[in-house]
Amino acid sequence: MANKINLNADMGESYGAFKMGDDEGLLKIVRSANIACGFHAGDANVMHQVVVRAKQEGVSIGAHPGFNDLWGFGRRRIDMAPRDAEYAVVYQIGALQAMARYAGLKPTHAKAHGMLYTMAAEDLELALAIGRAIKTVDPDLIYVVLPDSEMERAAERLGLKLAREGFIDRMYNDNGNLVSRKMPGAVIGDPQVAAERAVRMALDGEIVAASGKRLKRRVETLCVHGDEPAAIAVATAARRALEAAGVAVVTLPELVNA
Amino acid sequence: MANKINLNADMGESYGAFKMGDDEGLLKIVRSANIACGFHAGDANVMHQVVVRAKQEGVSIGAHPGFNDLWGFGRRRIDMAPRDAEYAVVYQIGALQAMARYAGLKPTHAKAHGMLYTMAAEDLELALAIGRAIKTVDPDLIYVVLPDSEMERAAERLGLKLAREGFIDRMYNDNGNLVSRKMPGAVIGDPQVAAERAVRMALDGEIVAASGKRLKRRVETLCVHGDEPAAIAVATAARRALEAAGVAVVTLPELVNA
Amino acid sequence: MANKINLNADMGESYGAFKMGDDEGLLKIVRSANIACGFHAGDANVMHQVVVRAKQEGVSIGAHPGFNDLWGFGRRRIDMAPRDAEYAVVYQIGALQAMARYAGLKPTHAKAHGMLYTMAAEDLELALAIGRAIKTVDPDLIYVVLPDSEMERAAERLGLKLAREGFIDRMYNDNGNLVSRKMPGAVIGDPQVAAERAVRMALDGEIVAASGKRLKRRVETLCVHGDEPAAIAVATAARRALEAAGVAVVTLPELVNA
Amino acid sequence: MANKINLNADMGESYGAFKMGDDEGLLKIVRSANIACGFHAGDANVMHQVVVRAKQEGVSIGAHPGFNDLWGFGRRRIDMAPRDAEYAVVYQIGALQAMARYAGLKPTHAKAHGMLYTMAAEDLELALAIGRAIKTVDPDLIYVVLPDSEMERAAERLGLKLAREGFIDRMYNDNGNLVSRKMPGAVIGDPQVAAERAVRMALDGEIVAASGKRLKRRVETLCVHGDEPAAIAVATAARRALEAAGVAVVTLPELVNA
Repeated sequence: MANKINLNADMGESYGAFKMGDDEGLLKIVRSANIACGFHAGDANVMHQVVVRAKQEGVSIGAHPGFNDLWGFGRRRIDMAPRDAEYAVVYQIGALQAMARYAGLKPTHAKAHGMLYTMAAEDLELALAIGRAIKTVDPDLIYVVLPDSEMERAAERLGLKLAREGFIDRMYNDNGNLVSRKMPGAVIGDPQVAAERAVRMALDGEIVAASGKRLKRRVETLCVHGDEPAAIAVATAARRALEAAGVAVVTLPELVNA
Repeated sequence: MANKINLNADMGESYGAFKMGDDEGLLKIVRSANIACGFHAGDANVMHQVVVRAKQEGVSIGAHPGFNDLWGFGRRRIDMAPRDAEYAVVYQIGALQAMARYAGLKPTHAKAHGMLYTMAAEDLELALAIGRAIKTVDPDLIYVVLPDSEMERAAERLGLKLAREGFIDRMYNDNGNLVSRKMPGAVIGDPQVAAERAVRMALDGEIVAASGKRLKRRVETLCVHGDEPAAIAVATAARRALEAAGVAVVTLPELVNA
Repeated sequence: MANKINLNADMGESYGAFKMGDDEGLLKIVRSANIACGFHAGDANVMHQVVVRAKQEGVSIGAHPGFNDLWGFGRRRIDMAPRDAEYAVVYQIGALQAMARYAGLKPTHAKAHGMLYTMAAEDLELALAIGRAIKTVDPDLIYVVLPDSEMERAAERLGLKLAREGFIDRMYNDNGNLVSRKMPGAVIGDPQVAAERAVRMALDGEIVAASGKRLKRRVETLCVHGDEPAAIAVATAARRALEAAGVAVVTLPELVNA
Repeated sequence: MANKINLNADMGESYGAFKMGDDEGLLKIVRSANIACGFHAGDANVMHQVVVRAKQEGVSIGAHPGFNDLWGFGRRRIDMAPRDAEYAVVYQIGALQAMARYAGLKPTHAKAHGMLYTMAAEDLELALAIGRAIKTVDPDLIYVVLPDSEMERAAERLGLKLAREGFIDRMYNDNGNLVSRKMPGAVIGDPQVAAERAVRMALDGEIVAASGKRLKRRVETLCVHGDEPAAIAVATAARRALEAAGVAVVTLPELVNA
């Protein structure tokens, strides 16, 4: 039974004049920020803003690399050669490392975005490519993975630190993968439902799939999606419920490097 | 009278299926590579390829950040706020730093590309923005500048290492700026003419402007443009002529950090 | 004294997952829609949606071409050769013409976006380039112009139909150009102030500049910017005030082709 | 036995400063041009240039729409909703229709590019989406299809004119699909081999697969890829061999609308 856990959110997903998500609100609730790096979303300006504010809020930062598909927001399945994906991930992590110097911060984790994450969970070659990218840029980075997926296997094989992730605002298939966003009900917008799922994941290491099936999944970090309308309410409810249940909500390096 | 000088070339300017320049040929001739970082040109794949080959050839590497204008190849004048430019340059240098780890290399210089370079030569605010970017990411980076320009002033004001640059394949105006590429004769394609200019710049610190006027300009590095058809011939002729004149052609850090 | 006028708004400026403006709300208030065409903003999906809804609301449609600068939302000054701008405008109008077939509509006007509009107002060559683009694609298209600008002169010289435009939510300089968005107070968010300005423009052909100076400007169409937070409130107040003052609010072709 | 056939090539695939293929050379050999429309490659400038030169050479033009994936040159498999693909194709055809007005031409065919073509050959929904796009924009457009594919079925179901295509410079699988470019030998660079295949396709309606298997495939148009190094040699050899065999090489509308 976990007495501490991490709460993370994707952010920095605005692009130029296009605004996405409420980074400011999320930074006051979560403890780790996955920062978009300019491929599926994000730009140098918003990266700068997020790293500076993350520092002020004591939030740890990580790279959130995605496919080079701004229009599709990194959510379209793209058949990318693992080597190409690896280099694209290195590039994106490096960009964030440089931006983080404005805040005197170092990225401490990396989490693939959207369809890159989904595909890497099922494709060992892609998962290894992301892992090699992490190892090349900074072998101390924590590889955020879907539990019991090819990403977890890749992190282990490469000897990388890892954090297993649960999604408190997403439904799961029986195999532990996320239900596609194209399906109705895939995203959970009710803060209380999400909060209960968060506590269950933290305390019981258990995720309830869409079918009702209980999946045993140990998780070290819980994710809230910053671009959903209910993001702030969901994150707030989850944090309160976790703390009420005696689970401390800490940054990823506090948890993993402890 | 200089007994050594640097020869640099822009490279890594291919993009996906679009090929640009003969990086392989240039890497055997020049001693420093300005590597495009994905904004005006370049991508993670070509960056990877160039850093690996640069290492093998003993060529020092630097970032070649440009405007986020792939279509215009960074050559269109864009009115960009200095802060926006600064962050964009930090992002690009960081991306290269990460890619360079594949070769165990560190970028040792930064040189703005195309219109960003041209505008920064005349605009102190923009030149300072680029300088602050360099200082933020790695204060040891050498800022490559047009001699007697706002870039040179910015580098001095910020206490940065600098290298003054001469263009052996471009015509100059009387004020020491480059003749616009839109003007006929702006680009020098004759290897012998370029080689003679190179020697004159190195030995006499002198550039002959389009009008015939002689400009006194001390330069530590000479540039060949990699995307010109005559690039290889120009670079080869320049290197031979320099060495025949007793000028050693060395990497930028060998020259500046000596 | 005008007894009818057009009310237009920029729309279709979302891009993939990035949402911009309240097209649905605006389509119920304005009578003409300037639809972004995928360069500074917009994509085929949102174009489709807007043309279908415009048809249902009886709103006339026009192309809203901009610079190929998604990151800058077409608001950065870009030095683009007039011929390049011309072809880019032809391309964008053509794309909208095709999308409009889904609604059985034809675009009836063209209005340059953002900095392309601002620059064309002051640069006859650029204004003529946009005019030639219009003439090439469909010589019946109405060229929306800033009154007494180079755009108005270009439209006249090319024998194009034109509509002079007033901005009810933007401040003016004494020369009749818009105050830059970079200046405080450039955008008017108070619906009542905007509504009064609308009536004054319609009834008196008069615009009050930031300095208080009164500019005589005959206008046939009034613009509300769809991406401003107050857009719906401003448009609603303006339409009510115009109708209360006895000015009918009609589509651009109803007005110009009458 | 065919006594006439069409020869087509993809062109207009340059992008800004990035040059691709030898459009000028191809326009003197082939009779129909598939013009990239700015998504996977191409821009308004190169579209203008190609339509003007096509007119002078008597070459018929068609749209060559692709995925919005410039970096991947439209060759990466992207999971795009059929409706999204449909609108993207409408947009691209419309852009070309407008550009074609400079030459007084109308596009007379449409041919999907790269992976969009490959996927539509196997996916009826996607093939129908492209067909609906064609029908929406101009129901007289000829839909260029892989013979015996879902594209052919889609064209028939929608009542569209069609032209079945053979690739003289690509190897085939036994099922009549193209061997992936990732496989060695997928592209045929030997002009004589390509020319013989062209004649066999034209006279015998027969394609020899990589395995040696003979596939009966009636084709009305033969394709040469403009971005291959041997494109000009291959196209020249094919045209000569066809004419020597008594097969007239004509434009697509001459063939299909005859």
